[in-house]
Amino acid sequence: MLERADLPERVEIKDVSPRDGLQFEPNVVSVDDRVHLVDSLTAAGVPHIEVTSFVSPKWLPQMGDAETVMTRIERKPGVTYAALVPNPKGAERALAAKPDELMVFVSASETHNYKNVHCSVSESLGGFHRICEMARGEAVPVTAVIVTAFGCPYEGRVPIHAVLDLAVRLESMGIADITLGDTVGVANPLQVAEMVKAFRLNASMVRVGLHFHDNRGTALTNLLAGVISGCTRFETALGGIGGSPFSPGAGGNLATEDAVYCLQEMGIKTGIDLDRLMEASRFLEKIVGHPVPSRVYRSGGRMVPAGYGGSARE
Amino acid sequence: MLERADLPERVEIKDVSPRDGLQFEPNVVSVDDRVHLVDSLTAAGVPHIEVTSFVSPKWLPQMGDAETVMTRIERKPGVTYAALVPNPKGAERALAAKPDELMVFVSASETHNYKNVHCSVSESLGGFHRICEMARGEAVPVTAVIVTAFGCPYEGRVPIHAVLDLAVRLESMGIADITLGDTVGVANPLQVAEMVKAFRLNASMVRVGLHFHDNRGTALTNLLAGVISGCTRFETALGGIGGSPFSPGAGGNLATEDAVYCLQEMGIKTGIDLDRLMEASRFLEKIVGHPVPSRVYRSGGRMVPAGYGGSARE
Repeated sequence: MLERADLPERVEIKDVSPRDGLQFEPNVVSVDDRVHLVDSLTAAGVPHIEVTSFVSPKWLPQMGDAETVMTRIERKPGVTYAALVPNPKGAERALAAKPDELMVFVSASETHNYKNVHCSVSESLGGFHRICEMARGEAVPVTAVIVTAFGCPYEGRVPIHAVLDLAVRLESMGIADITLGDTVGVANPLQVAEMVKAFRLNASMVRVGLHFHDNRGTALTNLLAGVISGCTRFETALGGIGGSPFSPGAGGNLATEDAVYCLQEMGIKTGIDLDRLMEASRFLEKIVGHPVPSRVYRSGGRMVPAGYGGSARE
Repeated sequence: MLERADLPERVEIKDVSPRDGLQFEPNVVSVDDRVHLVDSLTAAGVPHIEVTSFVSPKWLPQMGDAETVMTRIERKPGVTYAALVPNPKGAERALAAKPDELMVFVSASETHNYKNVHCSVSESLGGFHRICEMARGEAVPVTAVIVTAFGCPYEGRVPIHAVLDLAVRLESMGIADITLGDTVGVANPLQVAEMVKAFRLNASMVRVGLHFHDNRGTALTNLLAGVISGCTRFETALGGIGGSPFSPGAGGNLATEDAVYCLQEMGIKTGIDLDRLMEASRFLEKIVGHPVPSRVYRSGGRMVPAGYGGSARE
């Protein structure tokens, strides 16, 4: 059964488009435009924003000048402006830019972690220890994303207990906010529900978030499964941009517009103004230079499609 | 909660691509190709197929030669080959072609019905009386689609009681299989759940099916809501084609591949072979001459994306 009484009043959205969304865009977006994107998300009422990552600009020129972006965005009180870091060196740079949150990431599968950051999962966790110490000194909370949490392109389906074990290790070093990422879009709704339930039963000290990619069209459906199961924290990207550099457009993030629209239609609050969010989408589409995958953006949201009229004959 | 024990063992899919999918394609697909499409769906194990409609070819050249299509398809025992008819005249033509099922349609809102078939809802029902009589003579079951059941582009949100009333009137003339169509893609999962529940409580003699369009990216999510609520009959279209002629591509049907993939990943049987279904998709893409919207078709289904490898850095 799916009943209003079982749904939460409110869901927290973190928009990851300025980082996860833009990091593999073929065109490097200017600092000005990246700042304006973050400010547009703030203006739309997005409560959490992943602003940038502090990685080597040699690797990812798209995330260059991360310090300047962090300095120039307009920070609204109450909004969390997060920075992603791959290692202690990145954390040092990030902390100097005063983020509200440091995000670290590790894969649920060894092979993916090695391909992604060229070290083992244990080595990644070793770095997190140092990052947590550094962040504690600045009173900045550290959160983590477990990527490939629902399936790995090299190792296949990831068992729930492996994700739980990893989360418990993260929590033991003080990282209690943990997002589970479906990095290649292979999660199914039942698996999502079972994962959230397993965390509630076995790792209730962890605050679970969910992050879905839409390779197989399941992202919004998985969000619904998460919401039904009691999860109220989701990462989405404006326009549905992002995903693997090897299949542009095909495996983007769940679009923030699509998530907000569907949640609000069910009476679940997000604090986000859909019309202002769509203004941000229009800007995003301009700066990336190609159509964005969001369906709600394309159809115009709640309104009746402008072109619909005359005889539909069905 | 979403638990395996609450999900059905099996779901019945009706593929509507040969009719609802092709009817507004800019290119008229040849009879040969329409026959081959239906045969490919049969070969993939699709249990119900909406083969064609019997409307004036002046209106819809895409559905011309409906008799020839019905005659030339290869009929597999146990599979339902359905024909849609707008009026008694169409029913007469259709019955001569020996379909396994006649489908009629009516809008939940007066304005949409008038725009669609140029008569009132009561006049449509009057025609159905005659169609039912004709079909009874040939022992062919009549089923109905209530279009704009979740929202009308002219009248807005449609109240559940209006849909229930219409369904009860249809059932009283012997039409107990009724599909609720979200013609412009405005349904939300909670609304779907409430609709299915209302039918179970107030019109349990009706066998409810659901038909979603994907204008706002909610189609698969609405299917999940339907499944959770106990509905086991869904209409989908291969490739996700179809929808309003005024926004091609933007408001297609829920793709059969996407529905089958997601259901099967949750352990719900459909009797459909996804690999053979994708062969049909490849053929469909060729005959319509443009990329089809299905996400599972694009990503290659269950397999790991071929291009995924190297460093993803997240």
